[in-house]
Amino acid sequence: MATIFSRIIAGEIPCHRVYEDAMVLAFLDINPLSVGHTLVVPKEEAATLDRLSDASAEAIGRVLPRICRAVLEATGATAFNVLQNNGAGAHQAVMHVHFHVIPKHADGSGLGVGWKPGTLAREAGAGLAEKIARAMAGPSRA
Amino acid sequence: MATIFSRIIAGEIPCHRVYEDAMVLAFLDINPLSVGHTLVVPKEEAATLDRLSDASAEAIGRVLPRICRAVLEATGATAFNVLQNNGAGAHQAVMHVHFHVIPKHADGSGLGVGWKPGTLAREAGAGLAEKIARAMAGPSRA
Repeated sequence: MATIFSRIIAGEIPCHRVYEDAMVLAFLDINPLSVGHTLVVPKEEAATLDRLSDASAEAIGRVLPRICRAVLEATGATAFNVLQNNGAGAHQAVMHVHFHVIPKHADGSGLGVGWKPGTLAREAGAGLAEKIARAMAGPSRA
Repeated sequence: MATIFSRIIAGEIPCHRVYEDAMVLAFLDINPLSVGHTLVVPKEEAATLDRLSDASAEAIGRVLPRICRAVLEATGATAFNVLQNNGAGAHQAVMHVHFHVIPKHADGSGLGVGWKPGTLAREAGAGLAEKIARAMAGPSRA
């Protein structure tokens, strides 16, 4: 399951590192959507977020606000998107969990967001929420 | 700075809740991009992720894998996107931090991702990474 990110984490491939701790590495995307586009990656090997341990996900969550502030400060951006893709059908290219931090600059560079919302019917919503809530009762991953 | 999410958290406005703990509430988006579109929200009032406390961001990170697994299990989706928008220019509509968990279904429903990558020049990358890393040295938020 090793990907290019495992080799970056191992130091076998160089990166433009912006942050590192025991569980998390953050570095610049070499194919950025905008200046400052940064990847935040768990050192744990997991293909998708649903397969990541709670501990690694918590460690990423903890540093995201600081990384976002640093990216904004360094680039002067005031708007940004955080995007995390899971599965080839959802635009994931490297099969190792990664959060994109993507500044949206005044020149329009950044993430393109396609948004075609529907409407949630009250009864369908109630049934679906209960189904998800029941599924939440399953075990967490250490 | 209170938004509609604060009123949902306070129980003044109903929601289709899927998860709740001391720091986090998750509920179905009433204008979903796809079946199972779920919002994960800190109870702390913060407009954007860069202004959120480390503790709230950590609490969200911790439950994201479980919420993603539950949404996949309940909907049968296998691909999904997690998106978190900051600023009106980056498609944020409600000014209270929220993570979208958006299943990508076989019918194509889900998030539209617009991706126009550039190339990071080696020297520019090195300088920018150092600038962001220096900005990371700033204080974290309790």
